Amino acid sequence: MDIYTQGAEDIIPAEDLDLKVAKSVISGRPLNIKLGLDPSAPDVHLGHTVVLNKIRQFQENGHTIQLIIGDFTGKIGDPTGKSAARKQLTDEEVKHNARTYFEQFGKIIDMEKAELHYNSKWLSRLHFEDVIKLAGKITVARLLERDDFEERLALGKPISLHEFFYPLMQGYDSVVLESDVELGGTDQHFNVLMGRHFQEKFGKEKQTAILMPLLEGLDGTEKMSKSKNNYIGIDESPNGMYGKTMSIPDQLITKYAELATDLSAEQIKQLQADHPKDAKMFLAGTLVRMYHGAEAAKRAEQHFTAVFQKGSLPDEMPEVRWHGVKHIPVIDLLVELKLQPSKSEARKMIQNGGVKIAGERVDDLQQTIIVEDDLVVQVGKRKFVRLKVS
Amino acid sequence: MDIYTQGAEDIIPAEDLDLKVAKSVISGRPLNIKLGLDPSAPDVHLGHTVVLNKIRQFQENGHTIQLIIGDFTGKIGDPTGKSAARKQLTDEEVKHNARTYFEQFGKIIDMEKAELHYNSKWLSRLHFEDVIKLAGKITVARLLERDDFEERLALGKPISLHEFFYPLMQGYDSVVLESDVELGGTDQHFNVLMGRHFQEKFGKEKQTAILMPLLEGLDGTEKMSKSKNNYIGIDESPNGMYGKTMSIPDQLITKYAELATDLSAEQIKQLQADHPKDAKMFLAGTLVRMYHGAEAAKRAEQHFTAVFQKGSLPDEMPEVRWHGVKHIPVIDLLVELKLQPSKSEARKMIQNGGVKIAGERVDDLQQTIIVEDDLVVQVGKRKFVRLKVS
Repeated sequence: MDIYTQGAEDIIPAEDLDLKVAKSVISGRPLNIKLGLDPSAPDVHLGHTVVLNKIRQFQENGHTIQLIIGDFTGKIGDPTGKSAARKQLTDEEVKHNARTYFEQFGKIIDMEKAELHYNSKWLSRLHFEDVIKLAGKITVARLLERDDFEERLALGKPISLHEFFYPLMQGYDSVVLESDVELGGTDQHFNVLMGRHFQEKFGKEKQTAILMPLLEGLDGTEKMSKSKNNYIGIDESPNGMYGKTMSIPDQLITKYAELATDLSAEQIKQLQADHPKDAKMFLAGTLVRMYHGAEAAKRAEQHFTAVFQKGSLPDEMPEVRWHGVKHIPVIDLLVELKLQPSKSEARKMIQNGGVKIAGERVDDLQQTIIVEDDLVVQVGKRKFVRLKVS
Repeated sequence: MDIYTQGAEDIIPAEDLDLKVAKSVISGRPLNIKLGLDPSAPDVHLGHTVVLNKIRQFQENGHTIQLIIGDFTGKIGDPTGKSAARKQLTDEEVKHNARTYFEQFGKIIDMEKAELHYNSKWLSRLHFEDVIKLAGKITVARLLERDDFEERLALGKPISLHEFFYPLMQGYDSVVLESDVELGGTDQHFNVLMGRHFQEKFGKEKQTAILMPLLEGLDGTEKMSKSKNNYIGIDESPNGMYGKTMSIPDQLITKYAELATDLSAEQIKQLQADHPKDAKMFLAGTLVRMYHGAEAAKRAEQHFTAVFQKGSLPDEMPEVRWHGVKHIPVIDLLVELKLQPSKSEARKMIQNGGVKIAGERVDDLQQTIIVEDDLVVQVGKRKFVRLKVS
């Protein structure tokens, strides 16, 4: 039983879950475990796997996974045209994104056994009359309790009326699918509770909400997300995944291990006793093993040790075809190659001793580089580029 | 031009109306003058005629009247089930109520020339997707500006989300019908402006709002309404209409004349110079003439004079078949006949000398009445009952 609550930030109501699981065991009827998916951003990263790992645990115990693609909203987009994130998707884009999701999900859950639903199936059939009846089941005050709505109203920032419908739809999905449990991040607190609200209003049994913590990204502060570029994608190469994991702050090792891996509680305890460097390498190896297998994990570790710990060049590195001038000041070269965002940043990096050309540290800010075929430019510990001159 | 603004409490925006009328005169295209009707309460009283008289003026000048039966809302009723006023109407009830409206309207406007619309025609065709697009055209803050919403939210009284859709629908009706002017009482201020809001959002020309004052009922304080039982129905008998008009407070004579009659500005000026009693009799006669003709007006005046001014019995009075005991205390009799709401009220009325049995004033609170065929019981100046004993 504990496995379901492990790692969860909040379970609402706390006592319901045990009861539901017990009933299911007695009746032999599996629970419906719901997870809603936004069809607009189908790249799955470790942040997503926090809930996916949790639903896998339910699936492993015979419960039914309900994956819901929120394609109805996706197809409408943002009617005010103000939110770039809510651009209108075509049927084909929705299908493509859903396939992308499912291919990646297959690494974590058994997609053969999961139910797939597109909520446009029931939502697009609602008429104005049905919408009014649905709207009659909730008050404006209740909707304004959502943190961001409350804040925006207080600050005089506009809330378009259609935004009130996103939580309604999410709640109504639970009514239609008769979900017993809904998973979500803590930022979904309000929306997941809408399921309970509407199930009750429609005379159905209320689902339990399991809210999982949000995983911080590589920067250690912001929530992991694609737009912040602080993520580890589950489709990344073994070396990329390993290297990125090695760059997270030490204090996140345990959290990553708990929320994003299949490590047992004992293994995690062991990890905490290790030196942070070793712990992080074990974490990185675990993630690569989960998504690429044990063999790949071993190779990624060897690669990392070879490159970053011994200071040698990596076996593989990006090649850039050079079309520019053959004699170029080192600062300009770094900016041109986008290895540094600005000249001042490039200058700082050189001053800190972080730039090597053909294996030699650059100390002179004014140095002119003669570009040749196979010249390797290195910035910091992990950025390499091999220049190709035709 | 002045005729359109005469008596109006507010015209929004003030300068638009002249321009629209002028354009219509030049182009020869009549204006679309919209009036929305609630299909749940089809008894037309003088309060309603305030706007009807105004649209008649437009009609007399060749403009097009758009009468909109809000049957879509009527058929939905109140999804929360809390508002008794919004009970769900069947198709037949809606049609019956609309017919009732139109029969009565025929006394004020030319129904042959008026357009009739049922808003379910377009609203019932909207799908969830259309509703979201419509909702995307307005903010929550804008809706909360409506006085009653603002107040209820502030007081913590629930606003059901579906209530937000009533103003949206009214506004959308104006989009569909391309209304140039919408009439309403001052209590419709917010809803009528919704038409302007949505017409603009849909790229149409914005209608002008003409807001008419609300007519107080017989009590002189509350808005005239059926539920307050302080109204004069336009279907009432000549004597009833005349008598009720005579019961309004003197200070309302001018307002009634301006808003509810076809009297000219000069006639109203004349009226104000008269003794209130005479002015009120002229007002009463005018109303009866408008709805029953000149002959009926003359007879109603004669009847009123005979009964109330000379103290004689009216020619007609309600008969009540008496099945009770033949000997009954006078107080019990008054309550039994519902001529008084309670024993204490009956007692007071007797003490004030307001009760006559068979033409004789009752002074003794303990008096026992012997009930006989044709016994007339009179309470106050205007309530008479003739008892029939089989």
